[in-house]
Amino acid sequence: MRLVATRRVSPEEEERYQEAIFRLVGALPQARFQVTSSGAEAIQQVLFSCFLEKARKEGKTHFITSCIEDAPLLQMMKRCEELGCTVHIVPVEKSGQVDLAALKALVTPRTALISLSMAHGLTGVIQPYEEIGRFAQEKGILFHLDVSWGLGKILFSFADLPVDYLTFSGSWIHSIPASGGIFAKPTVPLVPLIVGSPPDLPTLAALSSAARLALLALDGVALECIRLRDLFEEELIQKIPGVQILFCENRLPNVTVALFPRVHHEALAYFLERRGLYPNQSGMIFQKLDKLLAASQIKTESALSFSFSRMTTEAQVKEGARLLTESIAWLQKMSEDVPCTI
Amino acid sequence: MRLVATRRVSPEEEERYQEAIFRLVGALPQARFQVTSSGAEAIQQVLFSCFLEKARKEGKTHFITSCIEDAPLLQMMKRCEELGCTVHIVPVEKSGQVDLAALKALVTPRTALISLSMAHGLTGVIQPYEEIGRFAQEKGILFHLDVSWGLGKILFSFADLPVDYLTFSGSWIHSIPASGGIFAKPTVPLVPLIVGSPPDLPTLAALSSAARLALLALDGVALECIRLRDLFEEELIQKIPGVQILFCENRLPNVTVALFPRVHHEALAYFLERRGLYPNQSGMIFQKLDKLLAASQIKTESALSFSFSRMTTEAQVKEGARLLTESIAWLQKMSEDVPCTI
Repeated sequence: MRLVATRRVSPEEEERYQEAIFRLVGALPQARFQVTSSGAEAIQQVLFSCFLEKARKEGKTHFITSCIEDAPLLQMMKRCEELGCTVHIVPVEKSGQVDLAALKALVTPRTALISLSMAHGLTGVIQPYEEIGRFAQEKGILFHLDVSWGLGKILFSFADLPVDYLTFSGSWIHSIPASGGIFAKPTVPLVPLIVGSPPDLPTLAALSSAARLALLALDGVALECIRLRDLFEEELIQKIPGVQILFCENRLPNVTVALFPRVHHEALAYFLERRGLYPNQSGMIFQKLDKLLAASQIKTESALSFSFSRMTTEAQVKEGARLLTESIAWLQKMSEDVPCTI
Repeated sequence: MRLVATRRVSPEEEERYQEAIFRLVGALPQARFQVTSSGAEAIQQVLFSCFLEKARKEGKTHFITSCIEDAPLLQMMKRCEELGCTVHIVPVEKSGQVDLAALKALVTPRTALISLSMAHGLTGVIQPYEEIGRFAQEKGILFHLDVSWGLGKILFSFADLPVDYLTFSGSWIHSIPASGGIFAKPTVPLVPLIVGSPPDLPTLAALSSAARLALLALDGVALECIRLRDLFEEELIQKIPGVQILFCENRLPNVTVALFPRVHHEALAYFLERRGLYPNQSGMIFQKLDKLLAASQIKTESALSFSFSRMTTEAQVKEGARLLTESIAWLQKMSEDVPCTI
């Protein structure tokens, strides 16, 4: 008669699983870590902790974020507003990077938190997070960085960064979709978002295993992704007259944003998906690419984003470039053939 | 070059997975349903919805729960208190059921919500939830019932019950540990707890599959569990002089709480676990059994709870009773042999 024998997690077992995750983000053993059921939950736990401990207890009710953040962060900021906080949303510059002067000008003695993504998965643009972190530190403001898009793609070390909270989603390191995590420096406020919940060992194990594989690939992935990305972009430039590659400075090694002449991105994406090539149009929980480009003052309906991973091969890249070239030629011809009746 | 092709859930696919879950709780298609990453999250989403929509917008800041609830509910109530609400915790009677007169006396025009578990997994006691629901309905108070321990064990129908919110944890229907769900009647407030998170298809699929199996077993499980439980209790009564079975009225078909003479439950549980018999001592996120018994004015250090599932066999039950008998005899003898030196 073996009954509901709840699986208890021994501290040693938990530590063993955590080790690869700590190494991947470069955290010291004294950093606090918590598994969450999504990247969204991780982000919101940080914001809720600051709301409870900073806004309610210390009267620091001012929060800052950027206009290119995704739904979980922006919607949670809206909730903080409903609960009495003031939220400022910083614009970005043409480079896709946060407008630093605007950010600095917003800070008041009541500012509790600056919350940003390390990089954006659609534009690939990496934010100047070290500079922002140092500024926040000087001003005594908490700094939260969501590293979901950068984790496993670029090297950084939580221990060395002027960052108080680091969050990530497991999806982007090939873990199970419903997984994420928070790291917090030892002294910053961190309260549970879901109270009274037991530790979730299966999710920890999935994250741990994904982190281990990401660590193994970390050195190679950036070099190989850059090689494949450059190859892809060269092919596009050679074969598609008028193509433009955006955000070439300060970007992730695994993202290409291209602007194609005389096609609409939705028609093109539809075409490509039917042929097995999936651009990152997004939309689900992310900002749409055209909104992100508009934020950088690029008005277009013909841009697509592509991303590469450690699973991408050279053959796929070449086939992808070929499919794109063909599809664009076909779509351009079609739109020329159709007489404009409006 | 197949890239981050996010798996999109079609509404048909989602509906197909949901069907078994709706049937298991007896919900009509118009009921709102949401997958959560735990039973704790489900409970807390209900409370947070009531906090945002009832307490903050309508000034209904009074919440009621019972003293035998588990950590997720009690801790979230505490958080509501911190955020400015008033929480009353109703005592239970000797039967293990909520003191109805006390509950009714607590209600004020500001009462927003009564939040309770349908039954407790450690004592097995089923609450008079229909009566409480009708009372809440008359008074215009929202009623939340967590059915985690009753789901798949006893028959009920959300559609017919005077219950506004129904929550459950997937663990207790043998789904993956990090899974749960909320049902809400069409007109009651329900806001997301984790905002901007995409639907979690794998968890939905796991819940759906567990619900399908629970539905198949539903008719048989109660009868067979009761048969095995009665057999287990008869064996104990025959073989262990002075044993007492508690909470025999209004309890789940799959729980036995027994009071053993002249042994300490911790020593006994340790003994049994080493022999492969796992009593429900709990403690992790649950209230401890001795606390629950104390709430029913039963002061003892010798009670253990046992639970049965559709996987339990008659052979296991007999072996369990034999192990218990032996262990108790051994422990009683040992404590008689040791001279009391204090």
